Amino acid sequence: MNSLQPHAEKPARKTPSPSRDGGALYGAAVEYGMHCLTWLVDRDAPVSSRDLAELQGVSPAMIAKIMPRLEKAGIVASSNGINGGYRLARPAETISMLDVADAIEGRKSLITCREVRRNCALFEEAVPRWAIRRVCGIHAIMLRAEKSMRDELARTSLRDVVDNIPAPPDFAPEVDCWLGARTASREQSRISAIRAGTRRRSSDD
Amino acid sequence: MNSLQPHAEKPARKTPSPSRDGGALYGAAVEYGMHCLTWLVDRDAPVSSRDLAELQGVSPAMIAKIMPRLEKAGIVASSNGINGGYRLARPAETISMLDVADAIEGRKSLITCREVRRNCALFEEAVPRWAIRRVCGIHAIMLRAEKSMRDELARTSLRDVVDNIPAPPDFAPEVDCWLGARTASREQSRISAIRAGTRRRSSDD
Repeated sequence: MNSLQPHAEKPARKTPSPSRDGGALYGAAVEYGMHCLTWLVDRDAPVSSRDLAELQGVSPAMIAKIMPRLEKAGIVASSNGINGGYRLARPAETISMLDVADAIEGRKSLITCREVRRNCALFEEAVPRWAIRRVCGIHAIMLRAEKSMRDELARTSLRDVVDNIPAPPDFAPEVDCWLGARTASREQSRISAIRAGTRRRSSDD
Repeated sequence: MNSLQPHAEKPARKTPSPSRDGGALYGAAVEYGMHCLTWLVDRDAPVSSRDLAELQGVSPAMIAKIMPRLEKAGIVASSNGINGGYRLARPAETISMLDVADAIEGRKSLITCREVRRNCALFEEAVPRWAIRRVCGIHAIMLRAEKSMRDELARTSLRDVVDNIPAPPDFAPEVDCWLGARTASREQSRISAIRAGTRRRSSDD
């Protein structure tokens, strides 16, 4: 390349390198949130945030941050108490994968348009009207691609996802059983704690 | 929510929060790279990396990192020397916006599948075949959405982008003139430097 361009050819080390890490648009929260919801479909009893985490072997703290976002978006509803937890707030057929992604991470873009076109060295005094009358052509393409992606996510419902899980018929009852055992264990711990408290109070008298 | 889940309800402060920064899939490098290419369409003389940066008012170091990636992908070709720089390596009609994005930042995904399904607490000893026979259903949806996005980017060529820039007919000649003036100025500096060197040598004799 041009030998008169030392900076261009040998950039300073501190210049940030254009990202090539293959980073994804959505983080683990969207993936975990979608998985959490599949466990709530066709389940009568509410499932606690901690049980959802342990059932899936993922961080309880992460799930505890995801579920309130799904609740705020009207996708799940929560109930309190020892048997409390999360239920779907509406039918699985009406919850799209786009609803879930937007609820958890907000609306994501393919690119952040920096309006590079306004900086053109030829626009010395003012940016001409023709240059900014429309959306930047490159941004427009990215917006079209983003729309295709969002349309595809909007087309798939939580029901579609669950219907495609090839679990055998006895799997759902096994999950109910696992969750039921945890609720029963908590209930038992509570009763034991109450009894221990009663005994302590009796011996104090 | 369930009062027996203190960790779930009050996560430790150090737990990373699920991202909600509205981050974009592609960084500035893709945007700048696409803009750089528009200046090379229908331009006979090569344009140096530094001139591309200054013409657009963006960081020369950034452009100097982007252009070699486009060259490696066979989108541009470079030439050396005082009048060297970059040219399109093939017709603008055959360069898709997907080619450009992939060349600069590599293939990007909508989500990184962490195979959460394998961690299910019910799969105590081994993950059953039915659970992993197919691609994870959530990953499959993301792959479909990613394909829609990529198909849309693949459908738009660099020629389409340039044809949609509503520049007046005298703009392209003005750009040629601006670029030509910079080449002439570099040529003049080189001649002056040679003459100064010759004079120095003469006076040294």
